[in-house]
Amino acid sequence: MPRSGAEARRRLREAALELYRERGFDQTTAAEIAERAGVNERTFFRHFPDKREVLFDGEADLRAALARAVTEAPAELTPFEVLLRAFRESARNLEETHPYSAPRWEVIAATPALRERELAKHVLLTETVTEALRHRGVADGVADLAARTGWATYQHAVQAWIGDTTRSLDAHLLRAFEDLRALSSG
Amino acid sequence: MPRSGAEARRRLREAALELYRERGFDQTTAAEIAERAGVNERTFFRHFPDKREVLFDGEADLRAALARAVTEAPAELTPFEVLLRAFRESARNLEETHPYSAPRWEVIAATPALRERELAKHVLLTETVTEALRHRGVADGVADLAARTGWATYQHAVQAWIGDTTRSLDAHLLRAFEDLRALSSG
Repeated sequence: MPRSGAEARRRLREAALELYRERGFDQTTAAEIAERAGVNERTFFRHFPDKREVLFDGEADLRAALARAVTEAPAELTPFEVLLRAFRESARNLEETHPYSAPRWEVIAATPALRERELAKHVLLTETVTEALRHRGVADGVADLAARTGWATYQHAVQAWIGDTTRSLDAHLLRAFEDLRALSSG
Repeated sequence: MPRSGAEARRRLREAALELYRERGFDQTTAAEIAERAGVNERTFFRHFPDKREVLFDGEADLRAALARAVTEAPAELTPFEVLLRAFRESARNLEETHPYSAPRWEVIAATPALRERELAKHVLLTETVTEALRHRGVADGVADLAARTGWATYQHAVQAWIGDTTRSLDAHLLRAFEDLRALSSG
């Protein structure tokens, strides 16, 4: 049995992903995930409300980190500069967990219930970013537009990186925001 | 009994929306929608596979219209000019059906199953627009970025319009693409 809670969570995440890839999400139970992870079912439910949420561990942390990064960015930065900075910071986390990111994405793309959950996550994150931009004094309408288009740019960069890991996510992000600038001024 | 199929569809859409607002989506059945619309249940299922799809009537037409507008836009336009043009065209439809748009949006926002369906629709539409931009010769990566951020801008404009109908959707759209340009060059 793993000793720490963080270690149990990590093992549950990895076990869930393995089983979803082997059998599919629908054919996997929480009990089987717990067994594969070497913990009991009660431990599973101490960490996650259901088998769907295992793949969305850390979402609240990500939201908090983005809100903090936007709030604390230097006052002279433009909204897109603030967002690029915040996304680059959160991208460092994603790069560290990359061996988990790409297969996680494949499972989500293949499973309607997970795709819907992923999309709901994007809406929440966009709202968090909008709110944080407003706190910086960005006008309501512009904050909403910047958060939506900035988040769309981030998603584009993440997908480009999953398809081409010869460059870092950071490089894909810088490129995406440059391309957006070129598109808008073209 | 309405004589034409188009008239039955319209009555079913309006009846469904009325009932969803009165009782909630979960508490409404297809049979009740048919009764309110003055048609029988078989007619309901001839037009819609289930009660969820009643609110997404015309989605395939919208996808086709956007793809056509992007494909047929003059060759010298930039990707964002092409998208603004295509969105303005599809916005005319939305303005004509506005009495239906705003309450439809309220019902969707209040119902998780419908929110998920709406989000899935956005993903599909973005993919359609990406594909159409590629057919114009826009490079793969740029087409994906333009479709995602352009669609995000369109969504921002639609939401702004639902919140402020003293200006037309067309005016909100022009403003949104101008604001995006200002954000990117700032």
